[in-house]
Formats: sequence, structure tokens, C-alpha cells
Amino acid sequence: MEFSSGLLENAVREMSQLPGIGKRTALRLVLHLLRQPAGQTERLAHALCSLREEVKYCSNCHNISDGDLCEICANPKRDGSLVCVVEDIRDVMAIENTSQYQGHYHVLGGKISPMDGVGPNNLNISSLVEKVKEGKVKEIIFALSSTMEGDTTNFYIYRQIEAYGVATSTIARGIAVGDELEYADEITLGRSILNRIPFESSLKR
Amino acid sequence: MEFSSGLLENAVREMSQLPGIGKRTALRLVLHLLRQPAGQTERLAHALCSLREEVKYCSNCHNISDGDLCEICANPKRDGSLVCVVEDIRDVMAIENTSQYQGHYHVLGGKISPMDGVGPNNLNISSLVEKVKEGKVKEIIFALSSTMEGDTTNFYIYRQIEAYGVATSTIARGIAVGDELEYADEITLGRSILNRIPFESSLKR
Repeated sequence: MEFSSGLLENAVREMSQLPGIGKRTALRLVLHLLRQPAGQTERLAHALCSLREEVKYCSNCHNISDGDLCEICANPKRDGSLVCVVEDIRDVMAIENTSQYQGHYHVLGGKISPMDGVGPNNLNISSLVEKVKEGKVKEIIFALSSTMEGDTTNFYIYRQIEAYGVATSTIARGIAVGDELEYADEITLGRSILNRIPFESSLKR
Repeated sequence: MEFSSGLLENAVREMSQLPGIGKRTALRLVLHLLRQPAGQTERLAHALCSLREEVKYCSNCHNISDGDLCEICANPKRDGSLVCVVEDIRDVMAIENTSQYQGHYHVLGGKISPMDGVGPNNLNISSLVEKVKEGKVKEIIFALSSTMEGDTTNFYIYRQIEAYGVATSTIARGIAVGDELEYADEITLGRSILNRIPFESSLKR
């Protein structure tokens, strides 16, 4: 694309660095901002910069937080001996939306993925092992996506903590509520039969 | 969505003001920026702000420009007596990419659309009429999209300039190169038959 202005070209180039935003979409977004009052662009720029500069991570669970401890870790009603290991803060938000979980979280910040150059040292794993060593944790719940990387990460962490006698569990895999059996993949369906639960306990939910 | 940080919520809210960006996409983009070096966020914010503050429009054609005149209007090789009327600068870029046009442009900045509160006074129409009045223009080419609003805008401008004896034309509507006839809509196909061109002249292109 040939741009008639260097300023415009620069703005489009920076915008198209974002994932899923190509040059055409970037141009559309930038031209939209030009048609809006200047205040909107300033607010966007300021919000992004101040987040990037002032962002804090909870010292306990590594969730994004405004203070030293996030609201979840600071809440005395929540059970700190139950720790749910998730990949990123979107997973925390997803689980919080279910209102079914009253423990703490531990945000790894990614999954072990040698292909993308992410090793155990790039993730928040050592602080989790430290928590387990201190004897504060009774149960670790693995809630990573069940991909090769997720399974590798689960297993890596499991090997680090198994010596300390902490209970470990993983979230149930099975047919989603409302899904038709005939469209389920065979691995999921097979696991849902192997890991079946007593009918009476399913009635209570 | 419940955010664990006010800064994050603010950034997501501002990002989701952009057209086609919902809250989930905005969160994905903002979290991406957090994982990148701080310089990327700063460059994006600076590029957007400096574009918004320092943007200039060509005094002749209203295209976005770095100087008082855009590169097209400043180019002495281009024919200023031929003016192609377009809706916005993306149309200028699209026509420039064809390398088939050597005249000037006139960017209206939109189409007349009472439903969206856009009247003739919100568009760069008076400066076009002024150019025609001064006798600088031999031909006006209407290149707006053929919607109700585009046709209305064409007709409004035509009524303003018809008294000054300037030639007017509109870009050809017809079957796109490479398209199958059977899938064309009947209005386009009908027009392409009415506005047929001599076979010899089609061979030259």
C-alpha cells in the first residue's frame, strides 16, 4: 500500500503489529480515530501507556492487579490451600464467571513450548513450587488446555511437586453441557466414559 | 466481564471503542501488548497521537498529506483539469494502485446520508464547486460507490456544477474481470449490456 503521508503510514504500521490486525484493518481503525474527536485517541494512548507502565502483578498468584495482592488473594473468605493453575488471566476471568470456585489461582503466564522458545524458566513455576514446599497448599488443580504444551506443562510441574505430598487434580474433560454425542470427538467421548461419575452426584449440580 | 485491575479495564474499554473490536478482542490485544516490550506500546501510542495532532489535509484535494499539498497535487506531471471525486482516502489508494489514472482527486470525506446526519455542508463539496467555477476543471469523474447515498451525492454535486459547462462522467459499472456471468446480479448485468463498448477498444486494454 502507498500512503500519502508518513504519519499515517507510521500509525498504520504500529497498529498492524497487533495480532490479527492486518494493514487494511489498521488503516480502517486509524481513519476511524481521525474522524473522532482528538480526545478519543488521547484517551486510548494514555490508557495503553499507563497500563504498560504501571501494571502490577499479584505477588501471590501473578494475576494482573492494582495492588500488591489481587482481590482474590486478598479476600479472607477464599481458600488459599486450594490452588488452580491456569495459563493466563483470561482463564482466571473465565473460571471466576462460573462462581463455582472459592480457592486461589496461580497464573503461569504461558505454557512450556520449545517451538516458541518458552521454557520452564520463562513461566511462574518456581514460585508455585515454593508455595508447595512451604506446606501452604493442600491441593493443586491443573486447568491448562489439553494440548501437547498444556500436558507437558502439567507433567513438568507435577514432577516438581510430587515429593511434597500435595494432592493434584485436573479439571474434568467430557462432553460439554448441551452438546450432541454424535458430534463429539472420540478421545473426549472415550474419556467421558472412563471418568464417569455416580448419577446421584450429577443430580446435585 | 470482571477485570482484576482498573488500569486493565480502562485500556480494554478504550480499545473496544474501535469499530469491529469487541471486549474480548480488546482484552486479547491489550494482553498481547503487555507481553511485548514496553517500547511497542509507546510507539503505538505516540504514532496515533502524533497523527491525530499533526495530521494535515491537502489544501487542493483534502487527501491526508504531510505538507500543504499532497504528493499527487504537487506532481506537475499530473493533469489538474481532470478531477476524480471519491469518498475517502482509501479510494484514492485503491485507484492509485491501478496506475491507470493521471489526474487529480477530490476527497469528499463521506457521502450525503441524512440517516447518519451527514449533509452537504459536512462534506468537502463547496471547494470542489469553487474549483469548477474558477474554470480550472475540464472533467469531473464521479467514483463514489453506487448506493443510494453515493447516487444522491453524485446528483447533488452535478446540480451544483452543471451550469459551468464542465464535462462529467462516472466510472463504468459492469461485470468484474474474471467473474462468471451466471452469478452477476441483474442490475449490474443489465447496465453492462446497455453501456457496452466497441470490441476493438476493449482489445487495447
